[in-house]
Formats: sequence, structure tokens, C-alpha cells
Amino acid sequence: MADVDIRETRSSMDIATILGLISGFGLIAAAIFLGGDPASFVNAPSVLIVIGGTFAIVTMCFSLSEVMHTFRVIMKTVFYSNRDPSEAAIQVLQVAELARRQGVLSLQNVLNSLEAEPFLHKGMAMVVDGTPGEEVETIMRRDLQATVQRHMKSTSVLRRAAEFAPAMGLIGTLIGLVQMLGNLDDPSTIGPSMAVALLTTFYGAVLANMVFSPLAAKLERNSTEEAMINTVYLMGAASIGRQENPRRLEMLLNSILPPAKRVQYFD
Amino acid sequence: MADVDIRETRSSMDIATILGLISGFGLIAAAIFLGGDPASFVNAPSVLIVIGGTFAIVTMCFSLSEVMHTFRVIMKTVFYSNRDPSEAAIQVLQVAELARRQGVLSLQNVLNSLEAEPFLHKGMAMVVDGTPGEEVETIMRRDLQATVQRHMKSTSVLRRAAEFAPAMGLIGTLIGLVQMLGNLDDPSTIGPSMAVALLTTFYGAVLANMVFSPLAAKLERNSTEEAMINTVYLMGAASIGRQENPRRLEMLLNSILPPAKRVQYFD
Amino acid sequence: MADVDIRETRSSMDIATILGLISGFGLIAAAIFLGGDPASFVNAPSVLIVIGGTFAIVTMCFSLSEVMHTFRVIMKTVFYSNRDPSEAAIQVLQVAELARRQGVLSLQNVLNSLEAEPFLHKGMAMVVDGTPGEEVETIMRRDLQATVQRHMKSTSVLRRAAEFAPAMGLIGTLIGLVQMLGNLDDPSTIGPSMAVALLTTFYGAVLANMVFSPLAAKLERNSTEEAMINTVYLMGAASIGRQENPRRLEMLLNSILPPAKRVQYFD
Amino acid sequence: MADVDIRETRSSMDIATILGLISGFGLIAAAIFLGGDPASFVNAPSVLIVIGGTFAIVTMCFSLSEVMHTFRVIMKTVFYSNRDPSEAAIQVLQVAELARRQGVLSLQNVLNSLEAEPFLHKGMAMVVDGTPGEEVETIMRRDLQATVQRHMKSTSVLRRAAEFAPAMGLIGTLIGLVQMLGNLDDPSTIGPSMAVALLTTFYGAVLANMVFSPLAAKLERNSTEEAMINTVYLMGAASIGRQENPRRLEMLLNSILPPAKRVQYFD
Amino acid sequence: MADVDIRETRSSMDIATILGLISGFGLIAAAIFLGGDPASFVNAPSVLIVIGGTFAIVTMCFSLSEVMHTFRVIMKTVFYSNRDPSEAAIQVLQVAELARRQGVLSLQNVLNSLEAEPFLHKGMAMVVDGTPGEEVETIMRRDLQATVQRHMKSTSVLRRAAEFAPAMGLIGTLIGLVQMLGNLDDPSTIGPSMAVALLTTFYGAVLANMVFSPLAAKLERNSTEEAMINTVYLMGAASIGRQENPRRLEMLLNSILPPAKRVQYFD
Repeated sequence: MADVDIRETRSSMDIATILGLISGFGLIAAAIFLGGDPASFVNAPSVLIVIGGTFAIVTMCFSLSEVMHTFRVIMKTVFYSNRDPSEAAIQVLQVAELARRQGVLSLQNVLNSLEAEPFLHKGMAMVVDGTPGEEVETIMRRDLQATVQRHMKSTSVLRRAAEFAPAMGLIGTLIGLVQMLGNLDDPSTIGPSMAVALLTTFYGAVLANMVFSPLAAKLERNSTEEAMINTVYLMGAASIGRQENPRRLEMLLNSILPPAKRVQYFD
Repeated sequence: MADVDIRETRSSMDIATILGLISGFGLIAAAIFLGGDPASFVNAPSVLIVIGGTFAIVTMCFSLSEVMHTFRVIMKTVFYSNRDPSEAAIQVLQVAELARRQGVLSLQNVLNSLEAEPFLHKGMAMVVDGTPGEEVETIMRRDLQATVQRHMKSTSVLRRAAEFAPAMGLIGTLIGLVQMLGNLDDPSTIGPSMAVALLTTFYGAVLANMVFSPLAAKLERNSTEEAMINTVYLMGAASIGRQENPRRLEMLLNSILPPAKRVQYFD
Repeated sequence: MADVDIRETRSSMDIATILGLISGFGLIAAAIFLGGDPASFVNAPSVLIVIGGTFAIVTMCFSLSEVMHTFRVIMKTVFYSNRDPSEAAIQVLQVAELARRQGVLSLQNVLNSLEAEPFLHKGMAMVVDGTPGEEVETIMRRDLQATVQRHMKSTSVLRRAAEFAPAMGLIGTLIGLVQMLGNLDDPSTIGPSMAVALLTTFYGAVLANMVFSPLAAKLERNSTEEAMINTVYLMGAASIGRQENPRRLEMLLNSILPPAKRVQYFD
Repeated sequence: MADVDIRETRSSMDIATILGLISGFGLIAAAIFLGGDPASFVNAPSVLIVIGGTFAIVTMCFSLSEVMHTFRVIMKTVFYSNRDPSEAAIQVLQVAELARRQGVLSLQNVLNSLEAEPFLHKGMAMVVDGTPGEEVETIMRRDLQATVQRHMKSTSVLRRAAEFAPAMGLIGTLIGLVQMLGNLDDPSTIGPSMAVALLTTFYGAVLANMVFSPLAAKLERNSTEEAMINTVYLMGAASIGRQENPRRLEMLLNSILPPAKRVQYFD
Repeated sequence: MADVDIRETRSSMDIATILGLISGFGLIAAAIFLGGDPASFVNAPSVLIVIGGTFAIVTMCFSLSEVMHTFRVIMKTVFYSNRDPSEAAIQVLQVAELARRQGVLSLQNVLNSLEAEPFLHKGMAMVVDGTPGEEVETIMRRDLQATVQRHMKSTSVLRRAAEFAPAMGLIGTLIGLVQMLGNLDDPSTIGPSMAVALLTTFYGAVLANMVFSPLAAKLERNSTEEAMINTVYLMGAASIGRQENPRRLEMLLNSILPPAKRVQYFD
């Protein structure tokens, strides 16, 4: 019978990313529709050269599995925002207080309510199973490092893509220009040919500046935040495993939280 | 009855920022009006693409609250210039001397005259309330760090905006060019269509070079100065709280002031 | 009679590099063929200026032998992917266990199965010959350093090439433009002349962005990985040479392997 | 009656800066005059946009006083070259020898001959007045630091100007292009309008590359040299104030002089 | 009677630099001649603006003597390749062995054969004259530092030139464009005028990418190598002057030589 109420949480969609993406592309679409014929902005070979070419080059720079993994990371880390670090710290302190008062085994009852936070859940499960605090810390830190390294790799995949998309756009436009200039006989085709040639540059600029570059920035930001929250979980699990005083845990957590996010759970 | 006259101060408008902004845009406006039809420089969809698009991308890179906060920081930190650090140091030394001569409680009388400087006021209020010097220092330093971190975040929001505004300008121009090239039948529309296409590039260049980039530079500069002045206040409040000799405080303050701003208050 | 089965391995083609290169160039080729006359994209003097010129400048920056060596490094390091570091660690631990159980001389029997990994083979051969562990480590570390240095030199050769190829493309295009502008009399030749002039820019962009730049990135990546695997071999050979406990070797190897690649060979 | 002859010196014009500036602008002027009508290169609004706009932006980034101070620094530090550091060291050693032989008060007689070097003069005047060596060093070092800081600020003002001048040139050209494109009816005005539009880009490129950028480089170089010479003066004044052996001073000076500028004054 | 044969050496032309320069310019020349009228690529005012202007700006940034010195450094360091460091080490060890066996004075006989290496010759001459090892090391190290500093200065002169040459090319092209656009009346002159205008951009690109930039890279590379070889000579001369065991010298030399260049002179 737990007299400490553990808040149940769930990380929410990162509204800023979704909103930015939709409103940015909405503006572009509006400008295209206002200007008349939207069909003139769709050209399958141009799409293939820019997207396919960027994908091909980025695959060359890394490996297929690293590029594929980046898609998963974007879905998981970029579009879902993390919890507030203060909230995570409070939750950890609640669990620690409960363990202090009623013993570590009583955590068995609250394990389910932690399932929304797999990293915390895993750590607490180890604690309940009697794994010593030092080992809990070692295992969780290794997990944390591996995640950080994977996110860094994915960030550099996105950075490379933002670098090569405009280059592929330029290459596509050069191909179009050379083809157009070789067929100057019929002046009526110059305009449309040139318009098609410019499309790859347009696609490249949109991809780099409205997709890859902001996603890389957001991934880096969210990854830093996730690492901080997971460090909070790690320190909590290790402290509970070592059966330390929760007040000492509060002090430790405040030393890693940013100034504006520090918590004061006890008195 | 205070025989030390505490100078009352108020931070003034940062004339350079206002002046630069007005004269820069004035020059652009003059050039546009001299050249004839100013209406040809206003195009709602172009404004939307560049300003809206830049806003959308920057929101993607950060979060909505961080972008909104940047506007407030600009208003507070960029347009208002800080006090002279020497003046701030003298003021702190005056308060310290008063506290030394007539006791800490006498500061009650001068608290009102410090309200123009909220950070100093807060510190002094804590001292008068009997908060120990160490705690005053801890609390004020935490506040100071949080402010510096928020300013750094806002600076990077402005830097990103300066980076993406020209990119959105290019994207807008490419949309305009593709639309124009698809309709080359009527030669009389080529000129105006091209003029409109170039407008987004123009907006992007103006926003990046005349607004975002200088504001970022100014914010960084004013933030550094504000941090130094607040450190002066912090050291003063902590020293008074610890009931130290004001001469020792003078020495401490001079060690952090830039060479040209050092003060000599006592003899 | 070895009761430890040493896995035989062979480093495989780096599929990502080959695949990226082929699919990238395939897309370019498709776009050219779809647009009509592919012959207009082949121009011997343009090829000479861009490829020859880039080669000439890079040779100036380095020396002929360094540039030539880069080709060999690309063939060996970029197109062949390394083994999995975990696998390499397991293999080394198998050999160490065998040496522990049956004595160092018994390694004579498994030397052949290590020939696919020349660096490990060389180290083990020294151990079998009775070279002391310290000397094995010194010699292997020197080899390793020399390889890393050669790879770094080759990476910077590729980076320079990626930098100068577009510059040579621009120079070629300027030559073509000046020649075309001097002969404006016959308007029918303007288009084709301009098309030829743009070809060098096209070649330069393709070479830099689809060949040199990704190869440099891949070389750096594979070189780091190869260095890690060779460090595993080095530590293994030295440890066997010093007749240490294989469990200690496992601990040492895990300290240099990335978190996700750590091994647990002994229970 | 001083038997040591103190060389009188005066810093000379920095010929390289003047020469480079004059010959660079001479070449531009020659090219303009050779090509015909020089009047077409003068356009008041264009000058205003580029120079006024750059000034406005740089003022926004810094403060009015910092920008104004930069002009004074350019006049004093960029156009006047410093003395040879070896010569300065020899002069200091001569003064030190004189003080050693005839006492510090005898320096009264040579103070006038040092007036060409205000920093040395100030230090020596303090020594003659009996200020202790340590205090002389503290005061002079504070002066030196303040000068170095002011020069660094001025260098970054010039760097910013070099960065924003081409941006203002681009903005001016875009204004001109939009105006021209809106009035394509009369083809005879296209050429001259376009020529005027390009003028701002021309002004921006000239200002950035032939004025701001080289002045920033020169200021940095001369400032480093001036700091070294003033350090020589500082060490000399402090050493004389401490009544040290001049041979020890020579050793000290050689430890800060660049290898090629070391002196051997005593045997 | 020396039973140690001291190899006589002479640094050879740096074939890569010469070859790269000649083949690069040969390719450009071939492309120009193939395209018809080579005279259209020669324009005295354009040459003056780009070369003269770059020289003027670089002089502004540095001083006349530093720019002039760069020419001498290019001739001496860029076009002549250094000896192999291993060979230099072997030679030094031969001399050290000779000194060990027959006494320092016997080196008198081999001094002549060292004249091809002035730095080694100077050091050995001091040793034969009985200068103590410590002093030989101090003097030679000071020389070495001064040379390295001069080379670094020359490298940055070349880097600046590579930066400003394209800028001068752009300025020249803008002058030509403005002149051409002011005279659009006679359409037949547009082509040739534009061709001339583009020439400065062409010169700037060629100078920066095919001359200044590669020379800077080569100078940096050769300077590093020369410094290493001179350090070998310095350590050798100092060791002989201190009458140390040549085997100890071999160990010392190997500690600074790159892995692939280490020597094993004594069994």
C-alpha cells in the first residue's frame, strides 16, 4: 500500500517540429498554388536525382544500417518531445522516498506505473531484483553511452544529407541546362526546359533547409535533453540500489540539472 | 539618516541599436522611393514565405517557447543598454560603506532607491532579511547562470534565423522563376514576374544582414556586460551579507572589472 | 589437437560504398539518357581539364607518391569493409584461451587460419617465435601508427581533390565562356558552346560531391574502425606473449570497444 | 653628464599600408579611366547605401563610441609602424645601464629624449619619482591590457564591416534589379539601370576586400608588435625601479623577443 | 683516416611541384589553343588589376619585406624537396660514430662533405671549435625557431593572396560589366566586352587555385619536413658536443622520427 503517488507520464508529440514542418511546407504549397499551375513543380526524374542521389551519397559516406537507423531515430527522438527534467527528478525522488519508507521490495507495486519510461523501468526492475547499485549504474551508463553515440551518428548523417542535397540539386540543374542549350532551335521550349532544370535546385534547397538541417538541430537538442533525463533515472536507480538517503539523491540530481530546472522535493 | 548618497540609476535605451536599425532601414527606404514605385517592393506572399518560413524552420530547430522567449529577450536586453560597470561598482561600494558604518539594518532605508536594479534589490533585500552571505551568493549565482543560459539560447535562435532567412529567400525566388519560365508566352510579363521573384531574395538578405545578425551580435555583447554588472551586484550583496570590510570588496570588484573600468572609491 | 574452434574470417566488400557509387552514377546516367542526346555530355578536353587539373594541383600540394598511395588506400580501405570488432575480440579471446590451455606453441596449428587477418597473423607469428610480449606490442604499435598516418594523409589528399575539382570546373567554364563571347557572330553556335562550357562545372561538381568527398568520409570512418580492430589484435598478441590470464584480456578489450560492441566471452 | 647616448626615435609612417592602399585604388581608377566614362562609376545613392548601411549595421552590433574609436585606432596604429623591437630593447638597456652607473635620479636628464615613446616616458617618470618597481609594473601592465583590449575590439569592428559591406552591396543591387525589371518597356534604359544596380555590389566588394579586411589584418599585426614593444618598456621600467642588474634585464628581454630579434648589448 | 664513409647529399628539385605547375598550366593552355584565338585570353589591364591588386592588398596586410621574403621562401623551400629524414639520421649517426671512435677533432676532415647541408655544417663546425653541447643546442634551436616562424609568415602571405586574388577578379569583372552595360548601343561589342570582363575572374581563379593555394599547402608540408630534418641535425650536433654514446643518439632520433622513417643503424 503505497502512500506515495507516483505520477504516470507519457512523452508527447514534439509540437514545434510538427508545426514547423507543416507550416513551412504549407507556405511553400500556398505560394505554388497562388502562382498558377502546381503541376509544373512536380517532376519525377528531378525528385529521383535529388532524393535518390542524396541518399546514395550519404550511404557511401556511412553504411546502409547507419542511414536506416537514422530514420528510426528521427521518428523516435525528433517527433516526440521529452518530459520536463524537473518532473523526471520529482518522480525519481518519489520512488526513492517510497523505497526508503517501505523497503525496496515495495517498488514491485509501482513498477507498472513506470512502464512509460523504459529506461527508468529497466533500472528499477534491476533494483527490485536485488542487483547491487554499482552494477545497476554500470549497466545503465553503458546503455546511455550507446544511445548517445547512435544519436551523434544520426545527427552527422542528417548534416551530411543537408550538405549534399543542394549539391545534387546543382548537378541536376547543370544536366538540364546542358540539355536545353543543345536544343536552342525551338525557342518556345527554352522556358519550360529551364523551369524543369531549376526544379532540382529548388528540391535541393527545400530538402536541405526545411528538412535535414532543422531535423539535425532538433535531434541534437532532444538528444541532449533525453541524455539528461536518463542520467536522472540512472542516478536515481543507482542511489535506490545503494539504499542511500533520498535527500542526498536530491542534492546529486540538482548538481546536474540546469539552474532553472532544479527541484526542491524535501521541505 | 544615511550620510552616504546612493545614486539612483535607470538603464537607458541602447541608442546605437535603435539608431542603426532606423538609419539602415531609412537608407533602404530612400533608395526605394528615389527609384520610383515603392509599391513594387511590397508583396504579401513573398513576405509570408520569408518571414513565415524562417519562423517555421527556427521553431522546428528549437521549441515554440524558446523562440517566443527570444522576442522578449530582444526587447529587454538588446534595446536597453546596461549601466556603466564602474558606476555599478561605485554604487555597490556606497551601499557597503553605509552598511559598515550604520549596520546592515540601515539598508532598509535605501532599498527603495535600488529598485531600478532588480537584481541588486533582490540581493539587498535578502541581506536585510538576515539571509547569510553564502546563501545570498548561491541563490544569486543560480539566477545569474539561468539568465546567461537563456541569453545564449536566444543568441543561437537569432543566429539560426540569420542563417535560414536567405535560404527561404532563395527558395521563394526559385518558385517565382519556375512559374515565370513556364509562362514565357507573353514577354511583357517577364520583367514584373522576375521582379517579384527577386523580392524574396531581397527580403531574406535584409532580414539576415540588417536584423537577425546584428541583433545576435548585440545580444551577445549586452548579455556579457549585464552578466558582469550582475556579478558586481552579486559580489557586493554577498560581501555585505558576510559583513566584510568594503575595502576588501573594492579589491575583489577590481579583479573582475576590465582594466579601463576599475574603480578607486576609498582614498 | 585444438578443442577451441578459431573462426576463419575474410573482410567483405563494403556494399554501401559500391552501392552508393553505382546508384548515384546510375541516376545521373538515367537523367542524361532520358533527356535525349547523351553524347553532348562527353567532351574530352573538359574531362582533361577537370580530372587532369585536379590531379596536377593535388600533386603540387603533396608529392607524387602520396597521391599514388591514395589510390591504393581507396582500393584497400574504402571498398572493403572491416570485420565486426566484437567478432575480432571473440577470435582473439579464443586464441588466448587455446594458448592458456595448451601452451603458446600449440598456436602453431592455428596460425594458418589467421592468414586472412595479416596484422593478427604477424603478431601471433612473433609470439610463437618466442618474441617477448613487450617487444610484440612495440613493433605492432609502430605498424599501427604508420598505417593511421598514411590513412590520414590519404584522407587529406581526397579532401583537397574535393576542394579543387569544382575550382577547375569553374576555370574550364570561364575559358569556354570567354571563347564563346568572342564569337557571337553566329547565334546558332551560342547554345552548344555554352553547353560545352558548362560541362566542366558539371564534371567538377560530380567529382567533388559524388566521388572525392564521400570517399574521404568513408576512408576516415573505415580507417577508425580498422585501427580499433588492429588495436584488439595488438592487445591480444601482447597479452598472449605476456602469458596473461585471458579473462584480464577480455576486460582490457572491453575498455576500448564501443559500448554496443563489448563482448562477454567467459561465462 | 650622461656618458650613455640614448637614441632618440620616432615611429614612422607604415609605408606598406599607404603604398598598398594607394596602388590598389590607383589600379582600380586606371581601369575605370581606360574603359571610358568614369562618371558612370559614381552614384551618390549607391555610395550612401553601402557606406551608410555598413556603418549603420556595425553601429547596431557594437556601440557608437566603439565604432568611432576604431577610426582613431586605424589612424594611430595602422598607418604608423612601430619601432624595431631590438632597437627598443637596446634603448631600454642603455637607460638601465645609465641608471646603474649614475643612479636613478640621473635619468631626469634623459627623460626628454624619451618623449617620442609616451609609454616608456610615463614609466621612467614614475621610476624617477620614486614609485616602487612593483607598482610601476602593475600600473603599466593595466595600461597595456586596456590598449590590447581596445585594439581587439577595433579589429572585430573592422571584421564585421568587411562582412556586412558586400551584404549591403547585394541588397543595393537587388533594389536596383527589382526597379529595372518593373520598367522593361523602354529597352534602352535596361543597360544603364543594370550598370547602376551593379555599382553597389562593386562598392561593397572594394570596401570589404581593399579597405576593411586588410586594415583589420594590419591592425592585428601592428597591435601585436606594439604590445611586444610596450612589454619591453614595461619590463625595463620595472627592472630599473627594482634597481636590478641590467644584465639580468637583458636576459629577461631576450626571453620575450622573437628569435630573430634577440639582442646582445653587454659584451 | 676516416673508416666511416659519410654520404654526401644534395637536396633535389621538388618534382611534384614543378610537374603539377607545368601540367596544370599546360592543360589550361591546351584548352585555350584548341578553342581558337589565344590572344583573346591576354589583356594587360586585367592582368594588372588581378596581380597588381592582390599584391597591393597583401602588402597592406603585412609589410613589404615580408611579402618579398615570401618569394625567396617559395624558391628555396617549395621547389626544392628535402632529404629523406631516415637518410639524414643515418648520416648524423655516421658522424657521431666517427667522433666516438677517433675523437671530435677528426670531424675536421669530414666538415667539407657536410657543406651541402648548411645547418648540419654550422653545428658541426661549432662542435669542432669546442663549443659545449648545451650552447650548440641553444644556438641551433634559436635558428630553427626563427626559420619556422619565417615559413609560417610566408604561408599566411600565400593564404591571404589565395583569398584576395578571386576578390580582385570579381572587382575587375564588375568594372568591365558596368562599362559594358553603359554602352549597349552597339550590340556587336557586347560579346567581346563581356569576354574581357570575365578575364579578371578567370585570372583570379587560376592564381588562387593553381598557384597560391597549392604553394601554401606545399610550403607548409616542406617546412614541417625541413624542421624535422634540422631537428635531427640539431640533436646530432648537441649529442656529439656532449660526447654521448651514439647508441643513445639513435634512440633519441627514433623518438622524433615518424614511425615509417625510424632507423636502425647499430646492429
